[in-house]
Amino acid sequence: MTRNDLFNQIKKKSSYLCVGLDTDINKIPRHLLNHQDPVFEFNKQIIDATHDLCIAYKPNVAFYEAMGPRGWESLQKTVEYIPKECFTIADAKRGDIGNTSSLYARAFFKEMNFDSITVAPYMGEDSVTPFLEFKGKWVILLAHTSNPGSEDFQLLNSQDGRYFYEEVIMRSQEWSTPDNLMYVVGATHPEKMEGIRRLAPDHFFLVPGIGAQGGSLEEISKTGLNAQCGLIVNSARAIIYASADQDFASEARREALKVQVEMKALLNRFS
Amino acid sequence: MTRNDLFNQIKKKSSYLCVGLDTDINKIPRHLLNHQDPVFEFNKQIIDATHDLCIAYKPNVAFYEAMGPRGWESLQKTVEYIPKECFTIADAKRGDIGNTSSLYARAFFKEMNFDSITVAPYMGEDSVTPFLEFKGKWVILLAHTSNPGSEDFQLLNSQDGRYFYEEVIMRSQEWSTPDNLMYVVGATHPEKMEGIRRLAPDHFFLVPGIGAQGGSLEEISKTGLNAQCGLIVNSARAIIYASADQDFASEARREALKVQVEMKALLNRFS
Repeated sequence: MTRNDLFNQIKKKSSYLCVGLDTDINKIPRHLLNHQDPVFEFNKQIIDATHDLCIAYKPNVAFYEAMGPRGWESLQKTVEYIPKECFTIADAKRGDIGNTSSLYARAFFKEMNFDSITVAPYMGEDSVTPFLEFKGKWVILLAHTSNPGSEDFQLLNSQDGRYFYEEVIMRSQEWSTPDNLMYVVGATHPEKMEGIRRLAPDHFFLVPGIGAQGGSLEEISKTGLNAQCGLIVNSARAIIYASADQDFASEARREALKVQVEMKALLNRFS
Repeated sequence: MTRNDLFNQIKKKSSYLCVGLDTDINKIPRHLLNHQDPVFEFNKQIIDATHDLCIAYKPNVAFYEAMGPRGWESLQKTVEYIPKECFTIADAKRGDIGNTSSLYARAFFKEMNFDSITVAPYMGEDSVTPFLEFKGKWVILLAHTSNPGSEDFQLLNSQDGRYFYEEVIMRSQEWSTPDNLMYVVGATHPEKMEGIRRLAPDHFFLVPGIGAQGGSLEEISKTGLNAQCGLIVNSARAIIYASADQDFASEARREALKVQVEMKALLNRFS
């Protein structure tokens, strides 16, 4: 998927919402357990109920991996089921030496046909570039994540007086362009968004941390939105677990709609 | 497995060799392709031929993941087949927000029963500690990796004049002890080993990078060995692909034996 495809979808839907498919078999409604593949059935109904309100889906790979081989089957079926117009993100946080990253890239881009994958930067250039070699595919590099531990290393100051995550953003731009590289920027640090947008004015940011983690959509949109939107804001638990009952899909839709309506207003104000 | 179990095995075998099971279906001998699970059959024969010469096995998870669901089955069978006395390492380089790291921990420690997993430090404490909560299981945290890209971020200087990987080693010691935490220290930077050993005198280091990547076993052993050995040195390609023919297992044994003999001498000289 190209940057323009993504922007066109954002304009069409007046949304920059990503629905996080953190699907946990212990949390889905009990009546689904009769299905042959309850996790896929849950995802399918969530996708059916939300795909006109969001522009991306982000399965958190850990949730599927924790289920062993059948989890990978649920994941594969889910990616295949997502409408082609929606951007798909494998939230896998991979990153290894060059020949190994190539294998991960093949697994997620070729075997499973994801549009993008989240990648950890710690091992540097040759751990990231194998993912950049796939035409039409995207790397979403961890910059400043949304979790409490993001302060441990990402906020260390370098000798040049920059945060470590700023070094990551600056150096990684030597490897690629805003046409196949995005950054993860957590919604839990709204005060950092303006500076990050200055460092990467044209890149898309994947923003986790609204909803259960407490980040504010309005705060991060104010300084994060750019002329092509530039934000993909993820919400998982608040949407997919809006109800634990028979009405889980329609309740998920209601939650997604709330976010989309707010996004439409924010796009008009700040973009 | 406890630190003492590990050390006892090292003494018994006069070895600190880890065999890396980077098993690629495109590289294994052709005659194995008739087997129902060629990857497992290859691993099985490698394990049979080497388990008295090495103290650990490290499947590189990417190689299995790249094969989809059946790759996970090969991986699971492999872990189950490894003799209980050998330390098992899931080279997975995971690391995510707390609730997600918990799922990865469950997948690798409970479902698959690995003794340890490699973890990336970028996301900080709450991405690492969920792995530390499993009794008898180990975290192997990336410190200074063996690949060329290890220079990009790991060698950035902090304001305190320390390398970034030194910050990782120092801070992570607040979360744990040498009884369930190790570090990845690449053999391709022998000049750094002395300083790293000073920062973590009692910890085990998992050392990749000898063999195909060019690191010297003697160089890193000289300054890396401590009173309880403290090193687990990985070799993958040089051993498992010593021959691409019918004799691959006996040739793997021959290569492993060469390393073990050198290790025995090094243990006598430096430990």
